[in-house]
Amino acid sequence: MDRIVECVPNFSEGRKEDVVKAITDAIGKGERVKVLDVEMDASHNRSVVTFVGDPEACADAAFEAVKKASELIDMNEHVGEHPRIGATDVVPFIPISGVTTDDCVNLARQLGSRVGEELGIPVYLYEYAATSPERKSLSFIRRGQYEGLKEEIRSDPERKPDYGPSELHPTAGATVIGAREFLIAYNVYLSTSDKVIAQRIAKAIRESSGGLKHVRALGFYIEERDMAQVSMNLVNFRATPVHKVMEAIEGECTKLGVDVVSSEVIGLIPQEALTDSAIFYLKLKEFDKNQIIENRLRE
Amino acid sequence: MDRIVECVPNFSEGRKEDVVKAITDAIGKGERVKVLDVEMDASHNRSVVTFVGDPEACADAAFEAVKKASELIDMNEHVGEHPRIGATDVVPFIPISGVTTDDCVNLARQLGSRVGEELGIPVYLYEYAATSPERKSLSFIRRGQYEGLKEEIRSDPERKPDYGPSELHPTAGATVIGAREFLIAYNVYLSTSDKVIAQRIAKAIRESSGGLKHVRALGFYIEERDMAQVSMNLVNFRATPVHKVMEAIEGECTKLGVDVVSSEVIGLIPQEALTDSAIFYLKLKEFDKNQIIENRLRE
Repeated sequence: MDRIVECVPNFSEGRKEDVVKAITDAIGKGERVKVLDVEMDASHNRSVVTFVGDPEACADAAFEAVKKASELIDMNEHVGEHPRIGATDVVPFIPISGVTTDDCVNLARQLGSRVGEELGIPVYLYEYAATSPERKSLSFIRRGQYEGLKEEIRSDPERKPDYGPSELHPTAGATVIGAREFLIAYNVYLSTSDKVIAQRIAKAIRESSGGLKHVRALGFYIEERDMAQVSMNLVNFRATPVHKVMEAIEGECTKLGVDVVSSEVIGLIPQEALTDSAIFYLKLKEFDKNQIIENRLRE
Repeated sequence: MDRIVECVPNFSEGRKEDVVKAITDAIGKGERVKVLDVEMDASHNRSVVTFVGDPEACADAAFEAVKKASELIDMNEHVGEHPRIGATDVVPFIPISGVTTDDCVNLARQLGSRVGEELGIPVYLYEYAATSPERKSLSFIRRGQYEGLKEEIRSDPERKPDYGPSELHPTAGATVIGAREFLIAYNVYLSTSDKVIAQRIAKAIRESSGGLKHVRALGFYIEERDMAQVSMNLVNFRATPVHKVMEAIEGECTKLGVDVVSSEVIGLIPQEALTDSAIFYLKLKEFDKNQIIENRLRE
């Protein structure tokens, strides 16, 4: 199996195309790295870049991007609706195949150390890479945003960064770097147009109301299809796989007298999520993923 | 998606390790090609090599193997149980991902032409590459074997090869080259030890007795598990997918009052076979395989 990491840095510039292009060019010039998507959001004044590749190559490409953003984005002039503390606001590393979350934590630390030392930008580690339970949360780290952090980073020991100086970079602010799991945006359509049924199912299966761990769910009515929809974010597909979610939804459907009509993946999905579902449904036992030809070829 | 072809040449030497090693070395020295498996069979005096890679690289590697085998194997001295007509007896090309059966037919023709012209070995095209309906069948082409073909290739117009001279190569004989689909060896275990039930299900689902196309099936009792087993070869998983076979077996099970306990894949399986099953069971609609991150990375 190839070793593949995804990296989804967020930059505090969503209006100037030349700036975003310079940053994505810095990422794309790396070998063994591929930029999959660039989303510019003018009202948030923020861009989200998705790239994938070999783990070490991703860390190098992310460093080049942080460096370029620090040269081109001035946080003193930044206005936008989305919470942010830096030119490169947040950099998550996400394991896709052949790597673990721990590997991604190590990438986050390596990048954090380089960004702190070589670029003089304070770095906070978050999620799986966090150095305290509170710092697992992005919103905790970003509280008060760039403007508030400016003073507090100097005076409040609780806001001491994990790497770099206890002072914001004059233009680039601070950066949050970490490791998280891949998020699958997954929707299921029901054989009813009754939104209430979708909402009941969503409530039954989501973590926040006592359902499956790592599942966020809401119920909607989708007018263009005249169907009720359970709309989900699966935030850890290895711990709570897609098929387990589908089984739970089908169980709720049976109780409520409706059926699952279809499902959809919005955006990207790691191959492993589909492979794991096939193994489950086909009741494959003692199956080694190295029996998959493509994995053998890339060993 | 990467373009991947599998090639499974059979050589008429299953006893001398140094000869087989020289042949696999000739294959393995090619770039963008990987040898996955080498099976030497002493009683058949025959070896089967499995390698995968980029289509053109596979054709080149196969040529090097045929050439090496023609130098090291003398059919005049070959004794073994398995039918054969040449040092390299048969070379199938099999589409794995990003290529069609037609692409593999073209590879077979290219290789056939080179083997005929450059090595002076007569070549018969078979299966999807066959130039007549009869020649689709390996056993038709191999009738009379090496010893019988020696005379008939000269005298019988029906036995004129597709490429190369109408005369066997003095040591390497003739070679059969073609394109076929990937064969998945797939077994399903039942919640019964009654072999007769497995045999009834096998009969209901296999092509030869009016069931699913491209499915060969037999029923067995497997002592080590004390379970009845439906043992299958799925010879065209794109036309008759694994999940369709599983659905058919489950339908028969319901009629007979038994359950599917588990299933197993013997040997290799293309990624696409599992992906297609996941899409089916999850009821994924409007799913584009380029939503799979790994496919995007390799675009």
